[in-house]
Amino acid sequence: MVTPVRSSRHQTRPVSFRLVEGEFERATRVRSRGGGLYDADIPAGWDIAGNANGGYLIALAARAMIDATGRPPLSLTAHYLAPGRPGPCDVSVDLVRVGRRTATASARLRSHGVDSLALLGTFGEQGAPGPLFIGTEPPDLPPIDQCVRAKPPGGEAVSGFGDRVVVRIDPADAGFRLGEPSGRPEISGWFEFTDHQRTDELGLLLVADAFAPVCFNVPSVPVGWTPTLELTVHVRGVPEPGPLRCRFRSRCLQAGLFEEDGEIWDAGGALVAQSRQLALLPRG
Amino acid sequence: MVTPVRSSRHQTRPVSFRLVEGEFERATRVRSRGGGLYDADIPAGWDIAGNANGGYLIALAARAMIDATGRPPLSLTAHYLAPGRPGPCDVSVDLVRVGRRTATASARLRSHGVDSLALLGTFGEQGAPGPLFIGTEPPDLPPIDQCVRAKPPGGEAVSGFGDRVVVRIDPADAGFRLGEPSGRPEISGWFEFTDHQRTDELGLLLVADAFAPVCFNVPSVPVGWTPTLELTVHVRGVPEPGPLRCRFRSRCLQAGLFEEDGEIWDAGGALVAQSRQLALLPRG
Repeated sequence: MVTPVRSSRHQTRPVSFRLVEGEFERATRVRSRGGGLYDADIPAGWDIAGNANGGYLIALAARAMIDATGRPPLSLTAHYLAPGRPGPCDVSVDLVRVGRRTATASARLRSHGVDSLALLGTFGEQGAPGPLFIGTEPPDLPPIDQCVRAKPPGGEAVSGFGDRVVVRIDPADAGFRLGEPSGRPEISGWFEFTDHQRTDELGLLLVADAFAPVCFNVPSVPVGWTPTLELTVHVRGVPEPGPLRCRFRSRCLQAGLFEEDGEIWDAGGALVAQSRQLALLPRG
Repeated sequence: MVTPVRSSRHQTRPVSFRLVEGEFERATRVRSRGGGLYDADIPAGWDIAGNANGGYLIALAARAMIDATGRPPLSLTAHYLAPGRPGPCDVSVDLVRVGRRTATASARLRSHGVDSLALLGTFGEQGAPGPLFIGTEPPDLPPIDQCVRAKPPGGEAVSGFGDRVVVRIDPADAGFRLGEPSGRPEISGWFEFTDHQRTDELGLLLVADAFAPVCFNVPSVPVGWTPTLELTVHVRGVPEPGPLRCRFRSRCLQAGLFEEDGEIWDAGGALVAQSRQLALLPRG
């Protein structure tokens, strides 16, 4: 098992990766049965209208992959197969390659006996510090208390996930909630866990799928279900404590599909994750 | 086997996907042994200094996944494990989920008995035409005969791959070849197969890894080997005949890693693929 204690900023030993303790850490615990098989329970309260949040599910599966490789995620891809629901689930991990610097693993997460996620990822520590080139900037957000809470598609539906995380959207990007989309497929905002625990590399996987779909800000797109086909997250740093600044945007909505790029910045101004997903546009 | 004949632009039946005939199609043929196992031969001539081009290897593996799913790629992720070399290889495909609109499969490519690639992808047709939002433009390139041929890292080394494809870089991005990097981690240019066959959805997978690494245009980065950890390609359209306009760039070089985003545009001005990879920076 991965022992949940605070990690140091630049570890070089791949087997000593530790997670931040807290509500999220407890909700993603897995129990090894040996042979790459893990049992877990999806607790109530991480769902949106009954289905577990997709980023939460990826983190749960990644927890088993982290245990199997002994390292934090560098690049993780998940393909969504079916929704996950609260209750027992299991994760099977296949170690593909274990090298000195990185390890590659594939995994499958089953919820109530149904394949819910297929994953493939490479795990390893960040390299030596020292940015060489950053060609982008964190979003210039209003203070977190001037940003607005996102509601899930469908309006006022009960969302346990909304109680576990603080997701606050820049008011300039929040018009879609009132039927006044901005015209730009972009949503920026703040993220932190409700219990204020530091978001670690595992948490970044959840953050990458925690915001509303950016297509909602394009007027011709109805607000509706946008099933993600695939989401890839690159972990680019170890976040400092504090709320994260996030920006998601799309450059191409066509042929029933859209991609969504995410950038996640820590409180110290470092780019700590990049994400990209491909999802289906809502049906009219 | 997938029958190699020209595809129509908007097919709705998932089992009728066809590839464009030509040198590339012949070089990626696979023979089914049943049970998701495929044999293939990596011909000489698709290598750079003895190792098969990475994008070519992905396409070879995808060929088996296309056969197993009966559909073209929508989103394909590959993790590079070891170089592939000319000679016999095999691909094992595991069908993860087959749905009405899409099918998900994982695969492993072995070259000379060594795991070379691990893959995970979702396959299916593009949806109904009609772009809703395009927030990017094709690169404004000089005519193809005024663009310059890229040399592989290491200078004048024999590169069979360079004879199979026409990769021509915008002179504004080609300074790294002469030790004069532009200062921007960006490379744009033209792509077509040497035999002028139309680049189809399979070909787009190769194009996504056919150009020199954009980090070569950052002065503090040495020109050297940049091992790709992971590459994801989203196929966003079916290319029209004619050379493709391509742009690759990075927004973040830090901690020994860089990401590289690609956009591939067809001769009709449509965005037909987006790619992102995470790779190791060369060691100084």
